[in-house]
Amino acid sequence: MRLKYKLWLDYRGRAFGDGPARLLDGVEQWGSLRKAAQELGMSYNKAWRILHAAEERLGFPLLDRSVGGTLGGGSQLTPEAQDLVRRYRALAAEAAETLEAVFEKHFSDWKDPAE
Amino acid sequence: MRLKYKLWLDYRGRAFGDGPARLLDGVEQWGSLRKAAQELGMSYNKAWRILHAAEERLGFPLLDRSVGGTLGGGSQLTPEAQDLVRRYRALAAEAAETLEAVFEKHFSDWKDPAE
Repeated sequence: MRLKYKLWLDYRGRAFGDGPARLLDGVEQWGSLRKAAQELGMSYNKAWRILHAAEERLGFPLLDRSVGGTLGGGSQLTPEAQDLVRRYRALAAEAAETLEAVFEKHFSDWKDPAE
Repeated sequence: MRLKYKLWLDYRGRAFGDGPARLLDGVEQWGSLRKAAQELGMSYNKAWRILHAAEERLGFPLLDRSVGGTLGGGSQLTPEAQDLVRRYRALAAEAAETLEAVFEKHFSDWKDPAE
């Protein structure tokens, strides 16, 4: 038996979770949403929709798409998005640790009767 | 912003969570799955399917349907189900508490920019 879970931030609905966080990590790494989507095996359209939905709920932009200069077409995270991802990652890591401990506490001596 | 989550026990798939736990609580209270389903505003068919699916995954019976005698048609929890619900309830309560604390730690000073 294992504990599984999903967590997300709710703000006027399901506003932010692993999906947007992974995309934003990718944008930070690659400087481009297209490249981030590609690295996750996701279409650019889907990636755009995921971030757009999160922005709608949150009420602020996650990507600064005006980055350009000689490279052009790049994206970077807005300061608010950087802050949000940092907090979300810290929360998720700590949640994983504490949930594992809570599960162990209550189920370490559980014997799956099917075994 | 609020933290939301879903948790469940995985054993050969999604094996046990809030749905079956609520039904089993109802059976303990009412001595009947039909009555438990009714109290939850759920059809008996749906309740049966939820518990049946959990039993399939877990590999042991949750309800002892042979309870009868002069009342007939009643159900009660098997000892394994009693043990599982007790553990699950303790885990879920503690998870709620610790997740709330983790969220507070990382988001108590978060200002929703939309406000």
